[in-house]
Amino acid sequence: MFVRNVWYVVGFEKDFEAPFVARRILGEPVLMYRSLAGRYVALKDECPHRLVPLSLGERVGDCIQCGYHGMCFSSDGACTSIPGQDKIPEAARVDTYPLVERHGIIWIWMGNRDLAAPELIPDLHWNSSDRWAASRGYHHFDCNYTLMNDNLLDLSHETYVHKSTIGTREEEPIANFTPKVTMGGDCVVRAHREMRGIEAPPFFATMIGHDCIINRWQSAIHLVPSINLTVLGIHPVEEDRATARVAHVLHLLTPETESSTHYFWAVVRNFRIDDADLTEELRVGNSRTFDEDRGIVEAQQRRIMETGQTVPRVATVQDQSPIRARRMLQNRLKQEHDDPAYTVLPPPLVPEHSFAVLEEFMA
Amino acid sequence: MFVRNVWYVVGFEKDFEAPFVARRILGEPVLMYRSLAGRYVALKDECPHRLVPLSLGERVGDCIQCGYHGMCFSSDGACTSIPGQDKIPEAARVDTYPLVERHGIIWIWMGNRDLAAPELIPDLHWNSSDRWAASRGYHHFDCNYTLMNDNLLDLSHETYVHKSTIGTREEEPIANFTPKVTMGGDCVVRAHREMRGIEAPPFFATMIGHDCIINRWQSAIHLVPSINLTVLGIHPVEEDRATARVAHVLHLLTPETESSTHYFWAVVRNFRIDDADLTEELRVGNSRTFDEDRGIVEAQQRRIMETGQTVPRVATVQDQSPIRARRMLQNRLKQEHDDPAYTVLPPPLVPEHSFAVLEEFMA
Amino acid sequence: MFVRNVWYVVGFEKDFEAPFVARRILGEPVLMYRSLAGRYVALKDECPHRLVPLSLGERVGDCIQCGYHGMCFSSDGACTSIPGQDKIPEAARVDTYPLVERHGIIWIWMGNRDLAAPELIPDLHWNSSDRWAASRGYHHFDCNYTLMNDNLLDLSHETYVHKSTIGTREEEPIANFTPKVTMGGDCVVRAHREMRGIEAPPFFATMIGHDCIINRWQSAIHLVPSINLTVLGIHPVEEDRATARVAHVLHLLTPETESSTHYFWAVVRNFRIDDADLTEELRVGNSRTFDEDRGIVEAQQRRIMETGQTVPRVATVQDQSPIRARRMLQNRLKQEHDDPAYTVLPPPLVPEHSFAVLEEFMA
Repeated sequence: MFVRNVWYVVGFEKDFEAPFVARRILGEPVLMYRSLAGRYVALKDECPHRLVPLSLGERVGDCIQCGYHGMCFSSDGACTSIPGQDKIPEAARVDTYPLVERHGIIWIWMGNRDLAAPELIPDLHWNSSDRWAASRGYHHFDCNYTLMNDNLLDLSHETYVHKSTIGTREEEPIANFTPKVTMGGDCVVRAHREMRGIEAPPFFATMIGHDCIINRWQSAIHLVPSINLTVLGIHPVEEDRATARVAHVLHLLTPETESSTHYFWAVVRNFRIDDADLTEELRVGNSRTFDEDRGIVEAQQRRIMETGQTVPRVATVQDQSPIRARRMLQNRLKQEHDDPAYTVLPPPLVPEHSFAVLEEFMA
Repeated sequence: MFVRNVWYVVGFEKDFEAPFVARRILGEPVLMYRSLAGRYVALKDECPHRLVPLSLGERVGDCIQCGYHGMCFSSDGACTSIPGQDKIPEAARVDTYPLVERHGIIWIWMGNRDLAAPELIPDLHWNSSDRWAASRGYHHFDCNYTLMNDNLLDLSHETYVHKSTIGTREEEPIANFTPKVTMGGDCVVRAHREMRGIEAPPFFATMIGHDCIINRWQSAIHLVPSINLTVLGIHPVEEDRATARVAHVLHLLTPETESSTHYFWAVVRNFRIDDADLTEELRVGNSRTFDEDRGIVEAQQRRIMETGQTVPRVATVQDQSPIRARRMLQNRLKQEHDDPAYTVLPPPLVPEHSFAVLEEFMA
Repeated sequence: MFVRNVWYVVGFEKDFEAPFVARRILGEPVLMYRSLAGRYVALKDECPHRLVPLSLGERVGDCIQCGYHGMCFSSDGACTSIPGQDKIPEAARVDTYPLVERHGIIWIWMGNRDLAAPELIPDLHWNSSDRWAASRGYHHFDCNYTLMNDNLLDLSHETYVHKSTIGTREEEPIANFTPKVTMGGDCVVRAHREMRGIEAPPFFATMIGHDCIINRWQSAIHLVPSINLTVLGIHPVEEDRATARVAHVLHLLTPETESSTHYFWAVVRNFRIDDADLTEELRVGNSRTFDEDRGIVEAQQRRIMETGQTVPRVATVQDQSPIRARRMLQNRLKQEHDDPAYTVLPPPLVPEHSFAVLEEFMA
């Protein structure tokens, strides 16, 4: 079951420098590209003639030519030519999906296209802001996307899964810092924790430039159904909060199928933004961090499929935010089912100066 | 659903120089060999004792010895010995299937054995004629055999799938040359096209020996359920049709399962027949050409299995012959279902001197 | 269907030098270890929080720490800590299974734990006796365990499957030596054969030290549901039976799933027991011998799954003991079904001085 009347991420601008991008989205094969005029286009990736994926063919101008018998389709899904004949049958067309760019991220709408208002795209402006630097990547996980929502809302897993990267020392697990959980309307869950006077974990020591005792804060922010943000702030204890180095990790999940997920991500930071080496270092480090998650969530998925159990089977204190997110998701699915025109305008997820006002914002 | 009362190809003579050949045919495991006296033998590839494939055992004279406990079976399926006992149980026998050679091709009959008349084998004498030279090969495709019938009856795909080998230039797609479609009784479909004054595609330039403007003809000939012939003729425009270099490509399809196909093939030619280098060149080139088809038809098969759709979903002008072939197949299946003794005597598929009389033959 | 109220082998002592061992047993994921005090422990390999296999975590003292959020479980299955909270929910515990060591072999009980009496473990003392030397190994077979029982009770397969290792010459197949089949209570089947004046097969020539004419005996002993012993004795014909070199091959099968089997094995011998080179040679040779079985039984399993047939489909004289063993197994399953407290005390499987008294024992 997927929420359909919502925008899902299918890639970053750079991915669309290729002639086209083909991905399965909510179970449907989709072929996407940027037209010569810069418009974003998404077609069902299936030739109506003999069901061959159009992505086995070629981009010809703003059309896609099927690689089997050469039928061409334009960006509105219409067949523009069939080799050897003038008449184009009415049925020779492919479905299209709204596809738009916002803040350097490309979004698709798989629901009722009449409802596809760009205003419904959440504000992730940090990705394209020149006041922030971004390190981007993509992971493919063989698990349902909700397992990753759970993962990203309960960051206490960092201590165990990410020992060697972003976790704290085990003697002082992240779980010891109780998160404050708040809700934003019927679609946002936030879990915020302050960790004061702790040792900098390896990955953060890199960001700061040296090992020292730090204050750290961490907000896990979830927007139903599958957008997640991790807001991180760190500063040496002897410095002021307003000097904090802040990073937002954008975890942009899109269901590929019920049991697999596209995981587009970006780490954006407000410091050393011209330092290309750091940008690359963060890309590599973050990629390795998410590799650590993969083994865990894919094992969960296999066990869920084998036994039919649901998670959490036993809940902990840390499960407060994942459970709220799952309830919101159930409500959203029910609302969309009851009212096929149901959509939700996403509220702002985090203030620009998170270091300054985060606490009030979370109140 | 398979036509059963028909001969299917299981290999060429040379394949049977091995002690035995094991293949799954219409879903059944079959072990085949040539007896010491030169008779062809086919047994169910399953020991009646403990279901072990007999092909894990050994050929011992004209018998097959099971590799588990040493039971031996003769070419009529009877158990001839069980180690450690004299009495052979009545049930210790394996099914056999009629297997015969004709024109260097080995054919199996999976239907009612009382109907297995060798006269029902189609005439493909070019394969063993000393007036033709043959380049042979085998492909295994993970698709239903009917997708390959479709492929071979609508050769307009050459322009797109086989760009680098046998296709014409895209500015002049093969589809522009409308085929003349004729039927032969209730089991043959032919689609013939003449292409005059065209540039020689790469593969044909090799056959001619140099690039030039050619006349080319091409007949796709289908015999229900799974024999296909491509008759090709080319000659420089300035030369006479009777001088044409003619090649017949035999596409001998045999269902392995509902979703996989044995593809035995031979390219036979009437020119430079003593040129072993050309024979090898054609073998390699043709093999590469069929590799190009594989990606397309296997993607089709996956989509058909996933969605349950049928092909063509939308028909083009080129689909006239594939659709006729599919209708003939449906009729044949129905006839065999209604009358279990139903068989069809295949008519001649192509005249010997196709360059001379093809046009009348196609009339 | 598995017998549950019985001890199954999960490994040898040496395997438990690792922090823990994780295996699927009767379809259930199990994590096992030896506590610091030397007690054997088995837990269900699934964290009750989010279903992650505990084996993705770490051994911490005598506890297992989940690799996801750091929950710890002690050897009695109780959760001892949840990071970030003091209260441990009642449901936060994992199932445990009785696990014990006997004669250097580790045994698990997957049935009603109240019935798990160590006396029900069969006596396989040769494995840890200093009068015997052992070569040990492990194979994983993709087949139901009963196919391996069949294999090990009908040793006439040696002539064909193990030609190059332990088989006799084909002119004198093992099947020619009719086994004497006896039953021990309702849980033991024995098939004993004497082979006098035969050539030593390759593997045995190694054991004797030279090629010669030998007397050989061989007992296949099966204990329901999945313990098998092969007792082997050989001596040159000119020497006395009491001088025989005796080896017991312990084939300790444990169902992993309905279609896969753990195969723990040990070859124990009463001669040259200090010869480490021979111990290694026997390990390698035996491992290769079981590799030969794998191809056969896995092919059987695939055919059984595909067709739903049972084995033997046709029975031979050699099938007397496998059929009796299968009947005993069916009875045992029925008895356990009718009486959930049903257990069986295994009788001694073979006398210590098998060379001397085996014949009477088999009577």
